[in-house]
Order: sequence, then C-alpha cells, then structure tokens
Amino acid sequence: MALQGAVQAASDEPIQPIKPPASINVGMVELGKKLYFDPRLSKSGIMSCNTCHNLSMGGTDNIPTSVGDHWQQGPINAPTVLNSSLNLAQFWDGRAADLKAQAGGPIANPGEMAFTHTLAINVLESIPAYVREFKMVFGKNKIDIDQVTLAIAEFEKTLVTPNSRFDQWLLGNKAALTQQEQEGYALFKDSGCVACHNGEAVGGNSFQKMGIVEPYKGKMSDGRAAVTGKDEDRFNFKVPTLRNVEMTYPYFHDGAANTLTEAVDVMGRLQLGKKFTKDENAKIVAFLKTLTGEQPNFTLPILPPSSDTTPRPTPFK
Amino acid sequence: MALQGAVQAASDEPIQPIKPPASINVGMVELGKKLYFDPRLSKSGIMSCNTCHNLSMGGTDNIPTSVGDHWQQGPINAPTVLNSSLNLAQFWDGRAADLKAQAGGPIANPGEMAFTHTLAINVLESIPAYVREFKMVFGKNKIDIDQVTLAIAEFEKTLVTPNSRFDQWLLGNKAALTQQEQEGYALFKDSGCVACHNGEAVGGNSFQKMGIVEPYKGKMSDGRAAVTGKDEDRFNFKVPTLRNVEMTYPYFHDGAANTLTEAVDVMGRLQLGKKFTKDENAKIVAFLKTLTGEQPNFTLPILPPSSDTTPRPTPFK
Ligand code: HEC
Ligand code: HEC
Ligand code: HEC
Ligand code: HEC
Ligand SMILES: [Ca+2]
Ligand SMILES: [Ca+2]
Ligand SMILES: [Ca+2]
Ligand SMILES: [Mg+2]
Repeated sequence: MALQGAVQAASDEPIQPIKPPASINVGMVELGKKLYFDPRLSKSGIMSCNTCHNLSMGGTDNIPTSVGDHWQQGPINAPTVLNSSLNLAQFWDGRAADLKAQAGGPIANPGEMAFTHTLAINVLESIPAYVREFKMVFGKNKIDIDQVTLAIAEFEKTLVTPNSRFDQWLLGNKAALTQQEQEGYALFKDSGCVACHNGEAVGGNSFQKMGIVEPYKGKMSDGRAAVTGKDEDRFNFKVPTLRNVEMTYPYFHDGAANTLTEAVDVMGRLQLGKKFTKDENAKIVAFLKTLTGEQPNFTLPILPPSSDTTPRPTPFK
Repeated sequence: MALQGAVQAASDEPIQPIKPPASINVGMVELGKKLYFDPRLSKSGIMSCNTCHNLSMGGTDNIPTSVGDHWQQGPINAPTVLNSSLNLAQFWDGRAADLKAQAGGPIANPGEMAFTHTLAINVLESIPAYVREFKMVFGKNKIDIDQVTLAIAEFEKTLVTPNSRFDQWLLGNKAALTQQEQEGYALFKDSGCVACHNGEAVGGNSFQKMGIVEPYKGKMSDGRAAVTGKDEDRFNFKVPTLRNVEMTYPYFHDGAANTLTEAVDVMGRLQLGKKFTKDENAKIVAFLKTLTGEQPNFTLPILPPSSDTTPRPTPFK
C-alpha cells in the first residue's frame, strides 16, 4: 500500500527514476566495450573514447575543453556518455541523431582521434581475435564501420546510472534524502529549473537558449543554429543531463564554471532571473548531488594484441 | 606421483612458473589501483599511469616511445608494468631500486606527467574520499608522497600474470603446449637465450649488453652506464621480461622492432651469433606466445570526484 502510494507519487514528479536498459545484445556490448577502450582506433595509438569520456570519472575528462591528437585544444566541453542513450539527440547542438550516428564522428575527427574509418577497419581486420568476435556478433565475413558504431552504441546503452539516492527516494525510500536535500528539490521544482531539466535524465530532452533573462558572458558558440540554420536557434544548446552532475565538472558548453555552486548561481540568474541566497544555492547543490547513480561496473576489458600485419600507429607524424 | 615428478622437472628448468603474490595489503592495493588510474596526478588532468602502461594492452602503450605532456616525444620504449615486481631494479638502466622508488618519477617528470609531488598531494588532500581512504589505510592525518608511491607499488605487486600455457606445462600439464611450441622452447634453451632470459619473469634479473656479437644498429642510449658511470656498462640494459611478450610490441629499448619474428632474429644474430632459419624462428616465436599469462582482472575503478577546492588541471598552459 505504502509502496504503491510512493510509486504513484513518483509518477507525478517531473523527474523519473532511471530504468536499466530493457533489451541489450550482450555479445555486441562486450565487443563495443573493447572498442570503446581501444586506442588503436586513433591515429596516435593512445587515444580511445575512454580518454575523453573516462568511465572512472563520470564519463567525462573533467577539463574545460578536451585534448585531441597532437595536443590540439578542443572547441567545446566533452559531455558525459553516462545516460547519453536517453538524449533526444547527440552533441551540444544535436547534430547527431543517435549514439550510432555519433560514434563514427570522433574516430575521423582530425581534432580528436584523427584517424579515418578505412584505417580503423584495416586495423581491426588485421587482429584475428577481433575478426572472430565481429563474425560471432554480426555473422558477416567483413568488418565495416556500421558494425563498429553499432557495437559502441550498444555498449553505451548499458552506461545508465540507476539507483541514485534521489531515485531511491522517488521509488519510496523516504529516508534516502536528508531534509536539506528535499528542500533543495523543492526549490529546484518551485524555481522553474524543471521546465528544462526533467524526465529520466533530468535534461537531455530539449534544446534551450543559454541566457534567457541575461546574456551568457562565457565563450559562446552558435549552438543549435549551426544545425538548423535558423537565427532563433542561436545560443540554443541541448539541455545537459543533471544525472551524476557532481562528477561532470567543469560546467556549461565552454566548461567555464568549476563548481556546482557557480553553475546553479548562473542558471538562476540567466535562465530565471533569480538570485539565490547562499542557503538556497547550497540546498539545490545538495539535491543535485543526490543524482549520482551507480557507476559503470565491469571488469577492465583486455584487448586482443595486434598481429604482425597490423598497421602501426603514428603518434609523431 | 606423476604430479610430483612434474614439479621436480619444473624446478630443473631455467624458467619457473609465476607465483601469485604471497603477502598483499588489500586496502593499499585498492587505493593504489585508484591512483594508478587517476589522471589528476598529472598537470594536464588527462594522463595517468594507465595511459602509458595500459592494463588493457599488456601494461604498455604499444608505440615505440611514449607521448608525454603536451605531446612530447619520449626518449625510450615504455616497458610493461606486468610482473615488474619481479625485476631486480626498475627502468631500462635500473636507476630505481624498486617499484616504490620508481613510482614517484613519472608524476614529476616534465616529459611525462609534468606535475610536482606537492601539487599532486594538494589535489589528493582536497578530495574528501581520498583523505578518508588514505587515513584508513595508513592511519595518518596527512597524505604524503611516500604513501602515494607505496600504494601504487602495492597495486603493481598484484600485476603478475600466472597460469600461462607455458606455466601450466611446467606444472605438469604436458598437453598445454603443442609440438611446435615445445620445439621452440628446446631451441630457446639450446641456443643460449636462457643465459639472459631465465627465472620467474624470463628476464628482469640482470643487466646485459645489447649487441654482444654484432653491434645494434638502432638508436642507442647509454643504458646502465648512465647509472654506474662505468664504461663497460655502456649499452647494457636490464634484460626485459619475456612474459606476455606477445602483447608488449614494439620491442627493444627504442621500440624499433615491430614483430617478435624480427626481435628473435636480431637477438639470435647480435647476442649469440646465430642466424635462425625461418622454421626455427617460427618455433621460438610460437614458444614465446605461450608466455602470455592471466591478465589483470578487476573492476574498473571509480574515482572520487574533485571538490570545490581541488586545484584544476592546466592542460594548455
Ligand atoms: C579528444 C576528445 C574526445 C574523444 C577521443 C571522443 N570524444 Fe566524444 N565528445 C567529445 C566532445 C568535445 C564532445 C562534444 C562535441 C560537441 O557537442 O560538439 C563529445 C560528444 C560525445 C557524445 C555526445 C554526448 C551528448 O550528450 O551530446 C557522445 C555520445 C560521445 N562523445 C561518445 C564518444 C565515443 C563513442 C568516442 C569514441 C569513438 C568518443 N566520444 C571520443 C570529446 C571526445
Ligand atoms: C530555460 C531552460 C533552462 C532552465 C530554466 C534551467 N536550465 Fe540549467 N541548463 C540549461 C541549458 C541550455 C544548459 C547548458 C548551457 C550551456 O552549457 O551553455 C544548462 C546547464 C545547467 C547546468 C550545467 C550542467 C553541465 O553539465 O554543464 C546546471 C548544473 C544546471 N543547468 C542547473 C540548473 C538549475 C539549478 C536551474 C534552476 C535554477 C536550471 N538549470 C534552469 C537550460 C535551463
Ligand atoms: C608518458 C608516459 C608514461 C607515464 C605517464 C608513466 N610511465 Fe612508467 N614508464 C614510461 C617509460 C618511457 C619508462 C621507461 C623509462 C626508462 O627506462 O628510462 C617507464 C618505466 C616504468 C617502470 C619500470 C618498468 C621496468 O621494467 O623497468 C614502471 C614500474 C613504471 N614505469 C610505472 C609507472 C607508474 C606507476 C606510473 C604512474 C605513476 C607511470 N609509470 C607513468 C612511460 C610512462
Ligand atoms: C647476452 C644476453 C642476452 C641473450 C643471450 C639474449 N637476450 Fe634477448 N634481450 C637481451 C637484452 C639486453 C634485451 C634488451 C635489448 C634492448 O632493448 O636494447 C633483450 C631483448 C629481447 C627481446 C625484446 C623484448 C622486449 O620487450 O623488448 C626479445 C623478444 C628477446 N630478447 C628474445 C631473445 C631470444 C629469443 C634470445 C635467443 C635467441 C635472446 N633474447 C637472447 C639480452 C639477451
Ligand atoms: Ca562538463
Ligand atoms: Ca630491488
Ligand atoms: Ca615494448
Ligand atoms: Mg616512467
């Protein structure tokens, strides 16, 4: 009875608990996990997805903008891959429709892994254990980039973070949150944050303007307008998920805010015209920290060694 | 009886099976594992021990010389950390007595992690979960670099790779090696390779000249002479372990040999004045591949997040 009441209540909330993925291809996940960690998908041989989306650290690199091949400075903050399967689209401007469409990008991006799809496939085709594993999973005799991106995307689908203290509370364990955290959640709802940060991922499901009431003073990029070509989409970004936000510092698309205190203050002023007191800000931050869920939990993948015919990486060319 | 006979035989062999570590401080290992994976011990915030000694890839980076901070090109090939606790000393020239003495080096090396010990300690002291874990393990109120290097070294002690097919064979499972592999081992012994590559790690227990019969044509560094100052130690290097050698390409201190076939050919000619036939070479290579043992098997560590007061990394300064 009590539980039913709680579940009822949860469904009335603007935030829903994260559900573990309901339909997963296990063989594809295991293959995708290897590829996610494999630096041989980069020109240098030392950069993998996990370099910039470090699963030991909330699925990000925790620096304002990423370090790419040859130490190039990236243009924008690397979002977390945790719960990215819940996004309506990928990238800050949503230019990739889904995780599969996204995963081909960084491999061939000269500022990131700086490789080509053809070279990446050549490397994989030269490694007998990969050839066998792709064949087992996809039942084909040749590896292609579609299989690579599909496998990585399937692995990424497993990177959801259920069972945060907030979700435990939503699901009926009322002792899971302190008084201060509950008051923070009340403020988060009543102030209007939930207009943009809602749903399972507490964000990730709409594009919104950065700087509604006041303009943003940081480094601005075009945002969504780069995709739509529409002037009204300038400075619109995909609303970031607030799941695990304690781990995904620094904040905003330019990584300019180092702390949650600062990010909450900016959001209040720029998006809602609200100046939170120190106490209110601390309550909201305390609530946000309850959104940290169970982190990826798997054995470090062991990668099959290259063979004599594997093209060697060229880090210094 | 049969087993006793086999164990007897094993002890007569120049190579001994790897034994898992006999005395390990579990709390220290768990802490050291986190530190090993923590890029916040580097100036840039993106380089950890695991960047150059990737435990998914045989404990190396599989490139001729490493990529350091700001993409600096390293001077020498990164040896594997697997079984490094069995070495008589650390580094190619043996300049560090043991793993603890070694572990402080890369953090403060401007060509590697480019940080300082003081800054690294400041970072760790600012992270509450680390402060608690150090206190639990070491029982002290302050973190210092000795604790850091001790914990990393303790973790590294666990990185031994028992139960290779060769060790199974040594321990009595005569079906563990094929005919070709056994012939390769016979050649390895009869040709004189075991003069330098012997013991538990099949190497790692002496310094030897590179280029005894013929000089080495690759890029030479001073080797052991840099430590002892003695002329007769020029071009002497710590004999590398051949455990997991299938995974630790490219070979030699300058990483110039891409394949085992090439490395075995060079060793035969330069160290022993022997030109192996294609068939002999293939047999030795087949034997060497039986030295791949059980790879590190643990859950990806999750690192505690930085706090508001944690000094931020400076990748682009
Ligand atoms: C050199 C750093 C770097 C590497 C390597 C890298 N990424 Fe990214 N990733 C980024 C950055 C920066 C963005 C944001 C780009 C943008 O929005 O314009 C991003 C965006 C993403 C997103 C979109 C998340 C969201 O919420 O919009 C996903 C998913 C992702 N990367 C997965 C991967 C995968 C899979 C790989 C490996 C195949 C990879 N990344 C390699 C830096 C990197
Ligand atoms: C009108 C939409 C909107 C409202 C209302 C809103 N946000 Fe945001 N939020 C965004 C957008 C868009 C971004 C990304 C902006 C950027 O990176 O430039 C963002 C970013 C954030 C971030 C940084 C996340 C990250 O990973 O970089 C935090 C924290 C945050 N919001 C919290 C809040 C809080 C707390 C409130 C209420 C006080 C709030 N937001 C209100 C749209 C909104
Ligand atoms: C930028 C690359 C890089 C980073 C980062 C790095 N290493 Fe190394 N490591 C090397 C290279 C190169 C050598 C060989 C140097 C030499 O022998 O002169 C080496 C040598 C070693 C050795 C000696 C192995 C042997 O057989 O002699 C150990 C052990 C080791 N590193 C552990 C670590 C630990 C622990 C960390 C992190 C605290 C670390 N390394 C960080 C590149 C790196
Ligand atoms: C007199 C000592 C000595 C003998 C005999 C010897 N080696 Fe070596 N071996 C070394 C040294 C020293 C190195 C490192 C040389 C360097 O890196 O410049 C080495 C390196 C190697 C490597 C490369 C390992 C790596 O990780 O880089 C292989 C493989 C190898 N030896 C196999 C053999 C084989 C097979 C034989 C017999 C044909 C043999 N060695 C005989 C001393 C010896
Ligand atoms: Ca961020
Ligand atoms: Ca010693
Ligand atoms: Ca090597
Ligand atoms: Mg070093």
